[in-house]
Amino acid sequence: MNYPSRLIEDAVNEIAKLPGIGKKTALRLALHLLKRDEEQTRALSDALLSMRTQTQFCRQCHNIADGELCAICSSTKRDASLICVVVDTRDVLAIENTSQYHGHYHVLGGIISPLEGIGPADLHIESLVRRLQQASEQEPVREIILALSPTMEGDTTAFYLQKKLKPTGVKVSTIARGIPIGGDLEYADEITLGRSIVSRVAYD
Amino acid sequence: MNYPSRLIEDAVNEIAKLPGIGKKTALRLALHLLKRDEEQTRALSDALLSMRTQTQFCRQCHNIADGELCAICSSTKRDASLICVVVDTRDVLAIENTSQYHGHYHVLGGIISPLEGIGPADLHIESLVRRLQQASEQEPVREIILALSPTMEGDTTAFYLQKKLKPTGVKVSTIARGIPIGGDLEYADEITLGRSIVSRVAYD
Repeated sequence: MNYPSRLIEDAVNEIAKLPGIGKKTALRLALHLLKRDEEQTRALSDALLSMRTQTQFCRQCHNIADGELCAICSSTKRDASLICVVVDTRDVLAIENTSQYHGHYHVLGGIISPLEGIGPADLHIESLVRRLQQASEQEPVREIILALSPTMEGDTTAFYLQKKLKPTGVKVSTIARGIPIGGDLEYADEITLGRSIVSRVAYD
Repeated sequence: MNYPSRLIEDAVNEIAKLPGIGKKTALRLALHLLKRDEEQTRALSDALLSMRTQTQFCRQCHNIADGELCAICSSTKRDASLICVVVDTRDVLAIENTSQYHGHYHVLGGIISPLEGIGPADLHIESLVRRLQQASEQEPVREIILALSPTMEGDTTAFYLQKKLKPTGVKVSTIARGIPIGGDLEYADEITLGRSIVSRVAYD
């Protein structure tokens, strides 16, 4: 496409580097900003840069934090004997939104994916093991809950973590897989349905 | 939603002001930038601000330009006796991509929309009339082509322009409405099909 000016072309190219945004959408967004007050673009531009340069990560769980420790790790109301292992901050937010979990987290920062060249060393796995070793001296960790997506990469990562965490002797569990609430049995895929039968739960 | 830090929240709020981007997508984009090099965010931030503060508009047709006149208005290869009236720069790009038009443009900068409070005075209509008056002294304008969307707003704007341009004596035409190429008669709406019969074109 022939852009009307080099400035627009640069902006479109940079916006289109974001995931899920193509050149057409990028152009629409750029022209939208051109129509609005300069103040809006300045605020967006500043907010992005401040976020990128000033955001800190919790030294314990690697979640995004405002200081050295994130709000969850520094809270006295959370159960430090439970650690839920997730891929990224969005998973933390999703689980927090359920209000069903009151333990700590550990953010891996990614998932093992040989296709994308991401191995265990690229993730925060060593620091999880260290965290368990240090914790045992102070207050023990009772359980590690793996909250990973039931995909090839998620299962691979879960398998690796299980092996890696075995020597620590801490109980390792995974979130339940099954028919989603409101889901229709008829439309569930056979693997999910099969797993939900194998992992059936007895009524109390 | 409880964002993990104020910086993220600010960035999400600013990104979500863009059209078609909600808070969830904004968060995904923000976390994506956090994972990438700082350089990428800096480039995006700079490109947006440079675009907004430095972009110029052609003093003749109001299209985006690198200088006082846009590339089309300053080109000697374009036919200055034809002016195609469009709503914004995206329409110019769309028409340029067809390679079927070699005249000049006039970018209105919007469309008459009483619901959104946009009247004729908010658009570059006066400057189009002035352009026609000045052109008649130098080289005459033969035809004004209205390339507006066949919507309520587009038709209103076209009607207003027709009345406004009548005193200048210049021929005013509109782009053809009809069945799109590759379209199926069976699935065409009756208004489009009706118009395509009324505006039928004789074989040479």
